[in-house]
Amino acid sequence: MSNNKPLILVSNDDGITAPGIRHLTMIMKEFGEVVVVAPDSPQSGQGHAITLNDPLRIKKREIFEGVEAYETSGTPADCVKLAKHLVLKERKPDLVVSGINHGANSSVNVIYSGTMSAAIEAAMEGIPAIGFSLCEFSHDADFSHALDQLRTITKQALENGIPKGTALNVNFPAKSDEPIKGIKICRQANAYWKEDFEGRVDPSKKNYYWMIGEFQNMDAGEDTDIWALEHNYTSIVPCQYDLTAYEGVRQLNTDWKL
Amino acid sequence: MSNNKPLILVSNDDGITAPGIRHLTMIMKEFGEVVVVAPDSPQSGQGHAITLNDPLRIKKREIFEGVEAYETSGTPADCVKLAKHLVLKERKPDLVVSGINHGANSSVNVIYSGTMSAAIEAAMEGIPAIGFSLCEFSHDADFSHALDQLRTITKQALENGIPKGTALNVNFPAKSDEPIKGIKICRQANAYWKEDFEGRVDPSKKNYYWMIGEFQNMDAGEDTDIWALEHNYTSIVPCQYDLTAYEGVRQLNTDWKL
Repeated sequence: MSNNKPLILVSNDDGITAPGIRHLTMIMKEFGEVVVVAPDSPQSGQGHAITLNDPLRIKKREIFEGVEAYETSGTPADCVKLAKHLVLKERKPDLVVSGINHGANSSVNVIYSGTMSAAIEAAMEGIPAIGFSLCEFSHDADFSHALDQLRTITKQALENGIPKGTALNVNFPAKSDEPIKGIKICRQANAYWKEDFEGRVDPSKKNYYWMIGEFQNMDAGEDTDIWALEHNYTSIVPCQYDLTAYEGVRQLNTDWKL
Repeated sequence: MSNNKPLILVSNDDGITAPGIRHLTMIMKEFGEVVVVAPDSPQSGQGHAITLNDPLRIKKREIFEGVEAYETSGTPADCVKLAKHLVLKERKPDLVVSGINHGANSSVNVIYSGTMSAAIEAAMEGIPAIGFSLCEFSHDADFSHALDQLRTITKQALENGIPKGTALNVNFPAKSDEPIKGIKICRQANAYWKEDFEGRVDPSKKNYYWMIGEFQNMDAGEDTDIWALEHNYTSIVPCQYDLTAYEGVRQLNTDWKL
């Protein structure tokens, strides 16, 4: 960390009025100068969507005391791009943080996560980035037990950096009777959503469907994020945006006849 | 490939009426029984978005001769989930193909790609899957030069399989005076979009912005998808949905004080 106050950009996917981003913003103020650029409405499940076919709006909001804040009509990934080009301009943030998400982004949920897409977008721009999520979906979720660890992780990121080409996916266990046991560096658990669709009929007698699902962990490893969270540890997974399966490259070169 | 006719699910992100999905569907008919489940409107840049806060609609369409086809109000990833649960039910596809996208999904574009999200969603369900894209954005793009290679790749996938935990990201070069030179198995090139926002003022005197961008390749490697495409080869990158940066796990365990 340089002697200058670090510049920290905050975003999320639950929208600028969500309690989670308020907690995150307040704690980031302890570390540096904070700028918030976040969606004007919830964007859960948006994955790494960007807005190509619609114009984008951005509006200054007086919502966090002493913090420059903007809401946008875009996705979390759009927010990072808008922040870079319209708000920060020549100033490059020392850290981008996203969250705190109301709900887990562990395991394969990272693929669908708007919270992590803001962090990964920043990583793609070469900026150290972290997505924070709490394993509790409720709007009124209690974040208090996780805030000291949030400080610890932020301090380590500013002092010791984040592996190149990655963004960190941090998940805090939901509040329980016991304090969180510690922090574990993990791999992404192999799991999937066992989905179904609940069919209904609208007043015009047309069918529509709601997606419903149940999370299925298929990974018995004790080095996964799911294992850590189930044992009341905070999990950190470094996530890369180079999706190349290098072993797959070797396998295709051997097995396929092209 | 078993003696039974393979069952092939087709989706895309340009919508069910795009020329690209028509080409793909017609060629898949040469290989097996085809079912199409695709968005009812273009979904470019949707990344791995799923629809959580809105109901989904699905409607049968008589659009491809001799092929069972449905349009949905969902994203490409939703289409794969809807196909599995509402259309195919107990029948598991032997292959899921997505595309042919009008526009490149090479390099980091895979992160924003709706085409690839359908393929990756299928891979997460344990189904061999391929996303096909043509490096030509136009609605009237010429796909003719790529169709033989599309057949070759489909045949190899059905006969020799796809590496576990991956979906293939296939990009065809745009039509030129020369035929495509061949097919290369590649890694994802390290590149980024140098974006900007073009500001305008609406009739109510409010500002709005259009995202514009220029693709910047920063990777001199000759084993990348961008290199292959620039040299008139078709590129195949096996893409994994385990985002864990294993070297990053080791690095954090060494460098961070937790």
